[in-house]
Amino acid sequence: MADHSVTVENTLQTLLTEKKYSTIRDILVTMNPADIAAVFAGVEPDKLPLLFRLLPKELAAESFVEMESEEQETLIKGISDSELRQVMDELYVDDAVDIVEEMPANVVQRILAQSAPEMRKEINEILQYPENSAGSVMTTEYVKLSPDMTVGDAILRIRRTGVDKETIYTCYVLENRKLIGTVSVKSLLLAPSDLQTIDSVMESNLITVTTHTDQEEVARMMSKYNLLAIPVVDGDDRMVGIVTFDDAFDVMEDETTEDMEIMAGMTPSDKTYLRSSPFDLFRHRIPWLALLMVSATFTGLIISSFEEKLAAMVCLTAFIPMLMDTGGNSGSQSSVTVIRAISLGELEFRDLGKVIWKEVRTAVMCGLVLSVLCVAKILLVDHLMLHTEGVNFTVALTVGLTLAVTVLCAKIVGCTLPMLAKKLGFDPAVMASPFITTIVDALSLLVYFGIATALLKL
Amino acid sequence: MADHSVTVENTLQTLLTEKKYSTIRDILVTMNPADIAAVFAGVEPDKLPLLFRLLPKELAAESFVEMESEEQETLIKGISDSELRQVMDELYVDDAVDIVEEMPANVVQRILAQSAPEMRKEINEILQYPENSAGSVMTTEYVKLSPDMTVGDAILRIRRTGVDKETIYTCYVLENRKLIGTVSVKSLLLAPSDLQTIDSVMESNLITVTTHTDQEEVARMMSKYNLLAIPVVDGDDRMVGIVTFDDAFDVMEDETTEDMEIMAGMTPSDKTYLRSSPFDLFRHRIPWLALLMVSATFTGLIISSFEEKLAAMVCLTAFIPMLMDTGGNSGSQSSVTVIRAISLGELEFRDLGKVIWKEVRTAVMCGLVLSVLCVAKILLVDHLMLHTEGVNFTVALTVGLTLAVTVLCAKIVGCTLPMLAKKLGFDPAVMASPFITTIVDALSLLVYFGIATALLKL
Repeated sequence: MADHSVTVENTLQTLLTEKKYSTIRDILVTMNPADIAAVFAGVEPDKLPLLFRLLPKELAAESFVEMESEEQETLIKGISDSELRQVMDELYVDDAVDIVEEMPANVVQRILAQSAPEMRKEINEILQYPENSAGSVMTTEYVKLSPDMTVGDAILRIRRTGVDKETIYTCYVLENRKLIGTVSVKSLLLAPSDLQTIDSVMESNLITVTTHTDQEEVARMMSKYNLLAIPVVDGDDRMVGIVTFDDAFDVMEDETTEDMEIMAGMTPSDKTYLRSSPFDLFRHRIPWLALLMVSATFTGLIISSFEEKLAAMVCLTAFIPMLMDTGGNSGSQSSVTVIRAISLGELEFRDLGKVIWKEVRTAVMCGLVLSVLCVAKILLVDHLMLHTEGVNFTVALTVGLTLAVTVLCAKIVGCTLPMLAKKLGFDPAVMASPFITTIVDALSLLVYFGIATALLKL
Repeated sequence: MADHSVTVENTLQTLLTEKKYSTIRDILVTMNPADIAAVFAGVEPDKLPLLFRLLPKELAAESFVEMESEEQETLIKGISDSELRQVMDELYVDDAVDIVEEMPANVVQRILAQSAPEMRKEINEILQYPENSAGSVMTTEYVKLSPDMTVGDAILRIRRTGVDKETIYTCYVLENRKLIGTVSVKSLLLAPSDLQTIDSVMESNLITVTTHTDQEEVARMMSKYNLLAIPVVDGDDRMVGIVTFDDAFDVMEDETTEDMEIMAGMTPSDKTYLRSSPFDLFRHRIPWLALLMVSATFTGLIISSFEEKLAAMVCLTAFIPMLMDTGGNSGSQSSVTVIRAISLGELEFRDLGKVIWKEVRTAVMCGLVLSVLCVAKILLVDHLMLHTEGVNFTVALTVGLTLAVTVLCAKIVGCTLPMLAKKLGFDPAVMASPFITTIVDALSLLVYFGIATALLKL
C-alpha cells in the first residue's frame, strides 16, 4: 500500500500544480482515510487546507484523525472556525482527545471553543485520566440499553442513535448507571423473537477494566477474551466508557515500540523514526549511553587492579572480549525472555524460584557446550595452529571454566533483575541487554581473574 | 484476572476431591472460555475429560479453543468419538486448523474423521497455505451477499445463516465469486430504507490481502485501516476467506515475541516460557551463543596482534570494556530503532541514504558528548584521584577520540545492516544487539589500537 500512496502522491502533485481540483476530489473520495493522511503528509503545508476542503465532511474528519499531529496543527491553523466546527462534530470523543493531547495550548483553546458543549465536557473529563490509562484512551459514545427493553426496541434504538456511536456491535445494559450486562448485535439479530427482553439475551458474565487500568493491560485483556470493545467502569462500578479494538491495535503497536526502545537503552519517543530529528534521537539515546559508559568504569577498575598480573600473562587479555560478549549474550537471552513473559502476563514475582531453577538448568547445558567448544578452539586454533605465546592447556581450562561460571551468573542475573524490577514497580524492559551487559561484564572479569589467579598461580 | 483464576482453581480442586460435580458446573458456566482454559491447565490430566463433560456444548468448544495444545491432546485422547464430533461441530474452521496444526498425526486423523465432510475439506484447504500466511490464519466462514439483494433481504439472510459465521458485522458482496464490495451491519441497520439494494449501500473501495500475504502484514493493514475483518482473495481475485480482528491480536503478540527473541539472539519458539523445558530453552539459545562466541575469536585475534604494544602500555587495557560496551550500545540503539521502523512498514530500502545521514548527525552529537565526558572522567578520576599508572592527557585523548569514532561507526553499521538484511530477504531482527555488538567490538578495537599507535607512538 505504501507504493500505491506514493504514486497517487505524484499524480496529485501534478494535478495540484495544474489546479485540476475536481479531478483531485474524484481521486481522493476513492481512497481510505489512512492513505489520504499519508498523501497529505507529503503535500506542502500551504496547500493542505485547499486539499482538505475538497473532501466530503465525513471523509475529511476521518482523514484528519489519521494524520500526524504536525499536519493536524498546520491544518487547524489554515481552516476557518466553522470548518473546524464541522470537523469536530464528526469526530468521536476519543479521537478528539488524541488530537487535543498533542496540540499547543492556543490550538487546544480553539478546538474546544469549536466543539459542541457536550463534547467539550467529555474531552475535558477524559483529559483528566492519567496518561496511558484506560480512561485516557476510552470513548464515551456507546449504545446504552436497559434490561426491560425488548430485542425489537433495542434494534430500533440502535437504528436511531447508532450513527454517533463508535461501535454498535456491543451494546451495554445499564441499571442505575451500573453495568449489568452486554448484548451483541449478533445476539439481537439472531434472537428467536423480537419480543424477548434484553435481560434474557444479555451476557451477564462481565469483563471490565477501570478508568485507571494501564492501557497495555486493557489491550491484553481484549486480546485474551477476543473482545471488540471492553467497558470501562469507575471506582463505584458505574460505566463511563468503552475502549474499542482499533484502539487496542494502536496500544499494542505503541507498547511494543516502547518496550523495544527501552530494551535497547533508549527513552521512549512518540515520534516515528522518519519524523524524529537527529536531535530528537540524540536526546532519547544519550542518557543511557552516558550512564552505561560511566558504569563501565567499574569494569575498568577491575582490569586496572589486575593489571600487573595481566602484564605477566598478556595472552589472557585476548579472551576478555569473548568472555564479556558471551556473558552479555547469555544474560540478554534470559532477560528478554523473562521481560516478554512478564509483559504477556505469564510470569508473576511468585514464579521467581521456578524461573531461576529453569534458567540454572539451561545455563548448565549452555555453559557445558560452550566451554567444551571454547577449550577445543583454544587448543586447536590458538595453541596448535597459531602457536600464540603463553597459551597452554591451563589457560584453555581457565577460559573454559570462566565461561561456564559466567554463563551461569549471567542467566541468573538476567532472569532475576526484570522480575525484581517489576516487583519494585519499575518497567522490567529497563533490565534488558545494555543494563545486563554492564553487570555481567564486571562479573565475568571478576570470575576470570579469580580463576586465573588460582589455576595459573599469578 | 490471573489471581482470580488461581483462587477458582483451588476451590475447584477441593470440589473435585469431594466429587461435587454440580457445584463445579455452576461455577464453570459463569466463567469465560480463556479463564476456564487457564483453570484446566492446572488440573491433573486424568480429571480433564470429567471436568470438560460438565460444560455446556458451546462453552466446551470455546474453552477447548483457548487451551494449550498439550491439554487439547490429553483431552482428545480422553473423550469419545461422539464427544469429539460435538466439539468439532461447534468450532470455526480457523480454530480447528490451529488445533490440527499442533497435534501428532494419529490425533489429526481422529479429528478429521469426526469433522463434518465440509469442514474436513476446508481444514485441508487451509492447511495447504504456507505457515504464517493470510491463507493459514483465515476462516472460510463469512456472510456472503449479492449486489441485487435489498437491505431487508440481507438482514434476513444474516439472521438465518449468521450463527455459523465467525463475524456477521462485515458482510461480503460477491459477483461470480469475485469480491465487489463490503457492507457493515451498521450500514444495514442505519440504512434509510429496507428496500435499498446492497450495491447502493456497499463500500466498493476494497482493502484485501491475498492468501500468501504474510500474517504480520495482514495484522498491520487491519490496524492501519481499523478493520474488524479483512477479506482474503486468491490469485484470480476470488474471495476465499476472512481474517478477523481477534486473529490479528494473536498475530501481533506472536510476531512481537518472535522479533524480541530473534533480537536477543534466540531462534523463535512457539511454547510459552513456563511450558518450555530447560532443554527447549537450551536448543533455542545455544546456536547463536556458539556462533557469536566463535565470531568473537576475531576480536581476540585483534588483541593478540597488539599484545606487545599493550604490554608496553598496560593501562590501555582497562578502557577496552568501556569502549566495546559503549560502541555496542550505540549500535544496538540504531539497529533496534531501524528494525522496529521496518517492521511497522515505515522504512523501505530506498530510505537508506536518509537513514544513514540521520544516524551520522545523531552519532556526531552522541560521540561529542560522550568523548568530552569520558576525557573529563579519565583526567579527574583515573589521573588526578586514583593516579593510575600511565594515564595521562594523551591517553585520555586517545580513549576520547576512539569513543567518538566508534560511536559513529557503530551507528552507521547499526542502521545499515537491518536494511540490507531486509533487502536480501532476511529477517532484519537478526541484525540486533548480539550481532551488531560482535561487529562493533572488532571495529572499536581496530580504531582504538590505530589511534593509540598514532598518538602514543607505540
